[in-house]
Amino acid sequence: MEQSKKFLLTEKDIPTAWYNVLTDMPVKPAPILNPSTREPLKAEDLYPLFAEELARQEFNDTDRWIEIPDEVREMYKIWRPTPLVRARGLEKALDTPAHIYFKNESVSPVGSHKLNSAIAQAYYCKKQGVTNITTETGAGQWGAALSLAAKHFGLELAVYMVKISYHQKPYRRSIMQTYGAEVVASPSMSTKAGRKIITDHPNYQGSLGTAISEAVELAMSTPNCKYTLGSVLNHVSLHQTVIGLEAEKQMEMAGEYPDVVIGCFGGGSNFSGISFPFLRHNFSGERSTRFIAAEPLSCPKLTRGAFKYDFGDEAGYTPLIPMLTLGHNFAPANIHAGGLRYHGAGSIVSRLKTDGLIDAVDIPQLETFKAATLFAQSEGIIPAPESSHAIAATIREALKAKEEGVRKTLLFNLSGHGLIDMAAYDQYLAGDLANYEVSEADVAANTADLMEAK
Amino acid sequence: MEQSKKFLLTEKDIPTAWYNVLTDMPVKPAPILNPSTREPLKAEDLYPLFAEELARQEFNDTDRWIEIPDEVREMYKIWRPTPLVRARGLEKALDTPAHIYFKNESVSPVGSHKLNSAIAQAYYCKKQGVTNITTETGAGQWGAALSLAAKHFGLELAVYMVKISYHQKPYRRSIMQTYGAEVVASPSMSTKAGRKIITDHPNYQGSLGTAISEAVELAMSTPNCKYTLGSVLNHVSLHQTVIGLEAEKQMEMAGEYPDVVIGCFGGGSNFSGISFPFLRHNFSGERSTRFIAAEPLSCPKLTRGAFKYDFGDEAGYTPLIPMLTLGHNFAPANIHAGGLRYHGAGSIVSRLKTDGLIDAVDIPQLETFKAATLFAQSEGIIPAPESSHAIAATIREALKAKEEGVRKTLLFNLSGHGLIDMAAYDQYLAGDLANYEVSEADVAANTADLMEAK
Repeated sequence: MEQSKKFLLTEKDIPTAWYNVLTDMPVKPAPILNPSTREPLKAEDLYPLFAEELARQEFNDTDRWIEIPDEVREMYKIWRPTPLVRARGLEKALDTPAHIYFKNESVSPVGSHKLNSAIAQAYYCKKQGVTNITTETGAGQWGAALSLAAKHFGLELAVYMVKISYHQKPYRRSIMQTYGAEVVASPSMSTKAGRKIITDHPNYQGSLGTAISEAVELAMSTPNCKYTLGSVLNHVSLHQTVIGLEAEKQMEMAGEYPDVVIGCFGGGSNFSGISFPFLRHNFSGERSTRFIAAEPLSCPKLTRGAFKYDFGDEAGYTPLIPMLTLGHNFAPANIHAGGLRYHGAGSIVSRLKTDGLIDAVDIPQLETFKAATLFAQSEGIIPAPESSHAIAATIREALKAKEEGVRKTLLFNLSGHGLIDMAAYDQYLAGDLANYEVSEADVAANTADLMEAK
Repeated sequence: MEQSKKFLLTEKDIPTAWYNVLTDMPVKPAPILNPSTREPLKAEDLYPLFAEELARQEFNDTDRWIEIPDEVREMYKIWRPTPLVRARGLEKALDTPAHIYFKNESVSPVGSHKLNSAIAQAYYCKKQGVTNITTETGAGQWGAALSLAAKHFGLELAVYMVKISYHQKPYRRSIMQTYGAEVVASPSMSTKAGRKIITDHPNYQGSLGTAISEAVELAMSTPNCKYTLGSVLNHVSLHQTVIGLEAEKQMEMAGEYPDVVIGCFGGGSNFSGISFPFLRHNFSGERSTRFIAAEPLSCPKLTRGAFKYDFGDEAGYTPLIPMLTLGHNFAPANIHAGGLRYHGAGSIVSRLKTDGLIDAVDIPQLETFKAATLFAQSEGIIPAPESSHAIAATIREALKAKEEGVRKTLLFNLSGHGLIDMAAYDQYLAGDLANYEVSEADVAANTADLMEAK
């Protein structure tokens, strides 16, 4: 393991405002629609579901910078600023001329970037007098983060955890419970949406789409309760921009600027967080950085999805969102990167991808674990299966640079550590994992009835 | 959760030398003995077992400061300096006038302080041309740390992991395997010592003492192979003093000096690490800090052990050490703090305790998990079951300060996080854990045949 180099900021360098990419986009996403009337929605229409300030942030396309409240910034200080690391160990293992940097978001007390938005969402709920919140979680990274944030602000929290992860990752369930949250395996019998899918498919192992339906239903039917979401939506991406804003300063300390910025992709939260601040310099014409969203081959909405209006959840409770989608009833394979098992991309990323402003790659499961093991051995940190998609995509780029003999600067986001995912590593080391692929024909069939997006 | 405050150092503040407490002790420990001849041993006598430089450090009582090699210090930079945190959240939860600080050693890539010595030991082995190393591990914190260090320096590693932990903590086994180490459940059939104890006690769940016997036996019977130990010995405590040396600077930044310094206690590595640098100011007469080693009620060598010459391992392969001991055949209860399930204390700590220069408390398992859960909810970090003993002892002191209405400054070492120990939290939350106690009569019977120490 070669000595890697950390670039560290101090607390005063924690950003004081989030960057709102909507204000700079050459073509803005089409509005989200009321599914009954197909009329565009306004912030007020979302007040029953979300804290009002979060609903306003969702629609804000005029304020380029949105101030981070002091209470949120104070809590960021528990673990932020996070390190930027020059991954000399990985570079040496690959024998590449590329310079590889990663932003280490795994150092948060819950082990991932999710706390960046969890704190903000819990804060705005508390400020408005909300007492109860609900959410869904896949691998449990978002649920763990929100559990800690809810405890901090004194909110009660019910988490619907995708059933496959509930069983694959019992430790992360225990983490949420240790922080004081209630955790329910989804689909469950506690909601209409859950009961319906259990009745139709008794062995269904759940998906983020189904868990969202359940959490939304509970929030809508519980007094003084709001729903929160860990990805996909504009306001979540907004909160995550602290990642890229810090990384920008740190790349400057390193005396470099990334040629390529890479993040894994589920609904978009960590990819947006690392990318959008750098993307703004592409918009202004100063830079021509390449952005790569790395998604699983088994859940390839960006590379193979249809650009349609689709629901954010399985039961169809949410507004219609213009998204690259595999269809809201798509049942993803049981890969270990539970946080990436989501059928659609948020409207901003879908627009950017459609307009050719960002790229995407889809990666088979075995390649991600091979990359993860190499990273663990060369950099010391065991990455989350989700983050391993970004590592695998980075390794592809680093090997291409070697082949071409060019010195590229690569930056990826290490969105979380994998200490809670060791059962997955165990299976990988034992040769028990497989690859899964989704055909374009399946996607076409699954999205045929949806309205074209624009 | 109240906003806690971090005190951060920069890389240049990483100590350049370890502090050798042996040079300042008013009464030095009696020498370790050859078990056959009962003659004192010299460094050379340990060369067959340990890297030569480590054997020399073990006996060094003349150099007050021992320079940290550049290669080791460079690797420390991966995660050091670690933060010191003023635990305002915990203070508020306890409503105590005490100021509570903790040194956060859980931020290392393997999640504990063990890497401080693992790197040093792997380095000295490599420097001497050793190709293979062996060790034992309880909960797996030491084994995980050594696995990473061995990979870094290109050494092959075989780890004997205490059987109860091998099954209780499969994730930590997987971590070692992901770093490339071989992991064997102890007792095993691969050594004479293991075969003997399996034959005598087929269901024995192992102990650190037995695992040490197996690792020592493998090292002694394998060409170009050395044994390494994660605690108990003087050179391990030496390497861990980076913890206290950093904490000293950070307490100065906070404008305070600790009235009480607390660490959990298994063999002594993290307790020594946080304590010895502060203890030197007691020796010089400048300060009168109190030191508390927090051990499990089920493994109470400091509070109830006999001061005798005893083996460091179960089979009797090691030298005789003057130690506070429960007897080398003591079979500790199956508590979750696997790293504290060891029968004896190192010779330095045993001497200090016997001379009244440090205190000890023994804590029931349920109290440690109660403390751990409060800490997780108030500070956001889920502590290792071992470290939770230090937290429980700190909470006792903080509540005493509240009762007495005095403003004390408490400092404890958070030796590791508990993310790999969530099965234990699960059992605690379900009410499935119990307390275990060891009677003085049992200890007396178990140590009756041993020679008195001096």
